[in-house]
Amino acid sequence: MTTSTALLLADLAGVAVFAASGASAAVAKRLDLFGVVFVGFVAALGGGIVRDLVIDEVPPLAFADWRYAGTAAVTAAAIFWLHPQFARLRTTVLVLDAAGLGLFTVVGTVKALDVQVPAVGACVIGMITAIGGGLVRDLLTGEIPVVLRREIYAVASLVGSIMVVLLHGLGHPGPIPLTAAAALVFGVRLIALRRRWSAPVATMRPPRTGLSGPPPE
Amino acid sequence: MTTSTALLLADLAGVAVFAASGASAAVAKRLDLFGVVFVGFVAALGGGIVRDLVIDEVPPLAFADWRYAGTAAVTAAAIFWLHPQFARLRTTVLVLDAAGLGLFTVVGTVKALDVQVPAVGACVIGMITAIGGGLVRDLLTGEIPVVLRREIYAVASLVGSIMVVLLHGLGHPGPIPLTAAAALVFGVRLIALRRRWSAPVATMRPPRTGLSGPPPE
Amino acid sequence: MTTSTALLLADLAGVAVFAASGASAAVAKRLDLFGVVFVGFVAALGGGIVRDLVIDEVPPLAFADWRYAGTAAVTAAAIFWLHPQFARLRTTVLVLDAAGLGLFTVVGTVKALDVQVPAVGACVIGMITAIGGGLVRDLLTGEIPVVLRREIYAVASLVGSIMVVLLHGLGHPGPIPLTAAAALVFGVRLIALRRRWSAPVATMRPPRTGLSGPPPE
Repeated sequence: MTTSTALLLADLAGVAVFAASGASAAVAKRLDLFGVVFVGFVAALGGGIVRDLVIDEVPPLAFADWRYAGTAAVTAAAIFWLHPQFARLRTTVLVLDAAGLGLFTVVGTVKALDVQVPAVGACVIGMITAIGGGLVRDLLTGEIPVVLRREIYAVASLVGSIMVVLLHGLGHPGPIPLTAAAALVFGVRLIALRRRWSAPVATMRPPRTGLSGPPPE
Repeated sequence: MTTSTALLLADLAGVAVFAASGASAAVAKRLDLFGVVFVGFVAALGGGIVRDLVIDEVPPLAFADWRYAGTAAVTAAAIFWLHPQFARLRTTVLVLDAAGLGLFTVVGTVKALDVQVPAVGACVIGMITAIGGGLVRDLLTGEIPVVLRREIYAVASLVGSIMVVLLHGLGHPGPIPLTAAAALVFGVRLIALRRRWSAPVATMRPPRTGLSGPPPE
Repeated sequence: MTTSTALLLADLAGVAVFAASGASAAVAKRLDLFGVVFVGFVAALGGGIVRDLVIDEVPPLAFADWRYAGTAAVTAAAIFWLHPQFARLRTTVLVLDAAGLGLFTVVGTVKALDVQVPAVGACVIGMITAIGGGLVRDLLTGEIPVVLRREIYAVASLVGSIMVVLLHGLGHPGPIPLTAAAALVFGVRLIALRRRWSAPVATMRPPRTGLSGPPPE
């Protein structure tokens, strides 16, 4: 098995995990079979589509290579019928999701650097690749995106994308340092889950003057 | 009247129908005149804008040809004042909407195939052209997109885009087979409406262990 | 200080103002630190990212020049801690926001015209540059976008973009007429705020037949 075959298989495994999480959220919202497959597709491939539009890789991989759309659709449809079993695998799913987060972060950051996007932009693009699908999944199911609300999720991704950019500054990084960056994201995410770390929320003091009440809509 | 003039007129008629549906939803949500026109614009042209970004036809037709934006804006503004009359035309609107669905599906799929997008990607792009505007309309008005929740709508579009791709595999299809594909979408959609067909929703059993409750937010 | 340095500084000031408004909305929704920074980033740069994708300036400026992302992130993080003080500056914020609206409108319209987008499309692109960030901010925080609901905000932007297009029709406009267009947006917006102007909302009569009730979902 060559490196590129291994990478494709890993990428498709990440797509399957993210499609399952999207499909599971859609089932809980009582969407129909089409809605479940569509939300699964978007959760798995939305981040990569945005990445490819931003770096001008068109048509995006999700449309150019049928194996991506196929993996997402088949996985999401399977969850439609198997969601009770899937719900029981919660810990496994969180671990696989953390692995997908690491993989998508590294792939996204590397693709951005390869087309000469500068360092800060490449970090943001890497992170959007990893968290974008989940964001759109939550918008489609009528939720404020969970990634914006709590837990160390996007931050784990950002740490990994910064590591990739730093490695890139030292020369074109090989597979071993890139795997280490993905493992870093995976590790930070798992430790954060285990220790229930979360990002801080701003303190809200009771308004004294009425001026610090809810912001103008 | 040449074929391309006929196609332009049909396309603008589709834009008008979708703009009216967007504007009508916006009026019901008490948006102001600008909001009604904007939601009408997005409902009519959002799917095509996404299609053009994905296949790298930039600037998208919605920005490159003023007749598209003009048709959408004028129609939406008319609905702002005429919405009570419009609401009474419900059956007519559903039929016109089904025709627009067929037309947009075929146009979107053909454009994707013309720039060498592979078969599966072209099907998805054709469907997004047809349903994308309605999706964004629902997001802007604070609803979970109806197309994800029930009824045979996106699936009718998908059937048509698959037919276009199959025809394309047999050689560059002429106007008659493409019209047949649009008519197929139209027919499937109308029969589904008539017979109240809808896509299945996953069965939710009462949780036994607490682990199959609502998914983690 | 050259013209282009002045323009960059003005642009970054606009980014800071819009990032602050996004961050402030995110704090009110109890998002965590990452969520506040992300919503601030999107509110400040989302409109420009859409503009750049539509006119095929890729990677968008928000990813190509770190000063944009940096300004947005630092401002949003500052609001996370300083939001009570920020909330007390409401009038100042509204004035700065109106200035940002004018600036982003003019910059967006000019960029679209520079790549040969026709007049109507350039107006829409200029307006989306100015209002797009706020739209996405509201979607991410679970609100129907305020810009669609009331107040003269997008309309002020549209007036300015039309003025830029008219000036462009008379020949490549210099900095003074463009500044006048930005000032026009600023003025219309401030007068609208001062006089509580708002766009009309459609009159809803009580349904007589049940057919003019809420539109079909």
